[in-house]
Amino acid sequence: MTPSRISRVVVTPVAFSDPPLLNVVGVHQPWALRSIVEVHTDDGLLGLGETYADEAHVARLQAVAAELGGHDPYDLNGLRRLVTRVLAAGDGGAGASFGGMLDVDSAVDTVHSPFEVACLDIQGRRAGVPVSSLLGGAVRDAVPFSGYLFYKWAGHPGQPDDDWGEALTPDQLVAQAHRMVDGWGFGSLKLKGGVLAPAQECEAIEALRDAFPGLPLRLDPNGAWGVDTSVAVADRLSGVVEYLEDPTPGIPGMAAVSARTDVPLATNMCVIALDHLPASIASDAVQVVLSDHHLWGGLMNSRLLAGIADTWGLGLSMHSNSHLGISLAAMTHLAAATPNLTYACDTHYPWKTQDLIAPGVLDFAGGSVAVPTGPGLGVELDRDALALLHEQYLTCGVRRREDTVYMQSIEPGFTPNTTRW
Amino acid sequence: MTPSRISRVVVTPVAFSDPPLLNVVGVHQPWALRSIVEVHTDDGLLGLGETYADEAHVARLQAVAAELGGHDPYDLNGLRRLVTRVLAAGDGGAGASFGGMLDVDSAVDTVHSPFEVACLDIQGRRAGVPVSSLLGGAVRDAVPFSGYLFYKWAGHPGQPDDDWGEALTPDQLVAQAHRMVDGWGFGSLKLKGGVLAPAQECEAIEALRDAFPGLPLRLDPNGAWGVDTSVAVADRLSGVVEYLEDPTPGIPGMAAVSARTDVPLATNMCVIALDHLPASIASDAVQVVLSDHHLWGGLMNSRLLAGIADTWGLGLSMHSNSHLGISLAAMTHLAAATPNLTYACDTHYPWKTQDLIAPGVLDFAGGSVAVPTGPGLGVELDRDALALLHEQYLTCGVRRREDTVYMQSIEPGFTPNTTRW
Repeated sequence: MTPSRISRVVVTPVAFSDPPLLNVVGVHQPWALRSIVEVHTDDGLLGLGETYADEAHVARLQAVAAELGGHDPYDLNGLRRLVTRVLAAGDGGAGASFGGMLDVDSAVDTVHSPFEVACLDIQGRRAGVPVSSLLGGAVRDAVPFSGYLFYKWAGHPGQPDDDWGEALTPDQLVAQAHRMVDGWGFGSLKLKGGVLAPAQECEAIEALRDAFPGLPLRLDPNGAWGVDTSVAVADRLSGVVEYLEDPTPGIPGMAAVSARTDVPLATNMCVIALDHLPASIASDAVQVVLSDHHLWGGLMNSRLLAGIADTWGLGLSMHSNSHLGISLAAMTHLAAATPNLTYACDTHYPWKTQDLIAPGVLDFAGGSVAVPTGPGLGVELDRDALALLHEQYLTCGVRRREDTVYMQSIEPGFTPNTTRW
Repeated sequence: MTPSRISRVVVTPVAFSDPPLLNVVGVHQPWALRSIVEVHTDDGLLGLGETYADEAHVARLQAVAAELGGHDPYDLNGLRRLVTRVLAAGDGGAGASFGGMLDVDSAVDTVHSPFEVACLDIQGRRAGVPVSSLLGGAVRDAVPFSGYLFYKWAGHPGQPDDDWGEALTPDQLVAQAHRMVDGWGFGSLKLKGGVLAPAQECEAIEALRDAFPGLPLRLDPNGAWGVDTSVAVADRLSGVVEYLEDPTPGIPGMAAVSARTDVPLATNMCVIALDHLPASIASDAVQVVLSDHHLWGGLMNSRLLAGIADTWGLGLSMHSNSHLGISLAAMTHLAAATPNLTYACDTHYPWKTQDLIAPGVLDFAGGSVAVPTGPGLGVELDRDALALLHEQYLTCGVRRREDTVYMQSIEPGFTPNTTRW
């Protein structure tokens, strides 16, 4: 068998419509962006990856894509060196911000990730095994996801109401949750908070507890609260939430909250890179880390995070941004092969109305996605859908995620709610 | 491509002659033991592994081997579950001791390791790529090893002197080092200490420094010293050794030494499993961890260790027991694919006179071993040599490594030197 070499790489930015979901920094724009990465090899294999699509990120992806010809898709160490070198030679690769909430010091992890996933897709196709096998083997046939609830407007201003309708009260959130649970079968629920005053968000969680007794619940205000407020909420929701995600910003703040409550604290804001783990662990700042292969540098780094979590007795969950099917496939393979990923994973998947993979895989049943059993990621591009979503990108006018800017175009006085309460 | 399934597993204990190398617990017996693991698949692939061969370990390997039929060689998570289950159902798998120096609480890692390596050998052969590629890709074409110096007798009592002759004085050790450096090209040297009084071992290190100016040196007394002695030796050898390995036993003892010296401390005794890392890191007990895929549960766990070392800024080196070529191949692939393995690896390889792999790979040049480029581990069994070494096992009478028992058969009053000084 001759070695595969990368022959051609295509990066395609796409856009798909997104409802007006509210969060601590503002509201989702009418279009969510993603980049689709296709890595072709000289022996006819195609690997897929999916990642963010802010303009600066797309430019970095394209700079890397231009250098990948001849690369061995097994050489992931070399891929990382290449990404590091290309970013240093380009704009320096010094950091990136995604949606005003996730800021990383270096873009290496986020740029590396979709190429690494595509290379693993190729490796799986070459060996005739699913990506979950390359990650150590699936320990579960289906991966449980959590229903992701949002405060939201009835529709984007100036547009008709969307299918989900308004959700600004506990009753409306319970109705939204019923649609998630009844329609998709989710066995746990997460509420994106940081939108209303903490007491109102506690009332919403309590209404969900009453409507779905025994269902694990999570609340994530994205750092909207100070330490004392966080402790007060933790006290109120003790025994009601399975964890509280990012009540307050930063490792020292989370450590201060953690010292005053037994409610497990989770994070996808203050521990979002391997470098953040030593300080977090030393101060017992969080008890649950949310992995995210897009942010942490790919599936192999996510395995490392899982191993660290297992070694130090940290809980492990999984974060999601708005995403399409290639991301969902990678998330599902990773989660399937990670024994200690015992919390249901987050996903925005129910909120989208379009995808660009061929149907027939990744359907939800009982809140879970069956792990694809075909070679590689087990999903195929629907090229007509890809073309349509790319056309949407070209015409939609959105070039970066700017929840705050969009919110301020509607409510001019708005400022982000970070540690507002 | 149909999936591979394991069809047949053969565990063969072998013995090869070993010189009378001295250490803290006694002296090497005339025969060193290893187990060779062959994993065959229903599509005609063969994967190889090598591990310890104490009688209890061989029995555990055979119990696992008997259960492996039908297993997917990609399912390493399932392999670990199977090993855990088989050990629990058998003798309980509660711990193992290797040579009186390495004691592990659970045998799961040590039993899992050779089967995992064999499965990765199969995966590489199936995909037509070397094991280093499965581990993320070689970052170096050749792996530097360290010359391993021992105090030793001229020969085993009652037998003719061996080829290396006596080494009990600094001059004799310098002569041994010349043979290592001149013959094999090693660019660093490690002395196994814990045999003579610390001042004498310091003299030996200083003689090596004078004979090989600038060559990195290491001293490993396997916990022969108390804390104060360890600090005194560190003071004396500061700037002379690149690290001091296990001067004193246990994480608290090492932490006490570490707090009083800037000489990096390394270990292959107090941190030999993932579970040991949190306490060691919290107390800054060691600055360099020696990986060893035989002990740490295989190549994937060794990658995890490397990732943890990188994340916490720990140095990484590699430990060796007496071993044959299958182990050397696995060590070389792992080291090649581990970017932060920047210390030369230990190896006992020069001390053996027989092997059971077909020649032509794994030759030393300039103290380094070229990373095999063939599929899988890139080594093939020499079945005549395997038969010979198995015959030696059957007739030699040694059934477990017992350096202390053997020493006491020669020097009846001997007791191990652990914290003697």
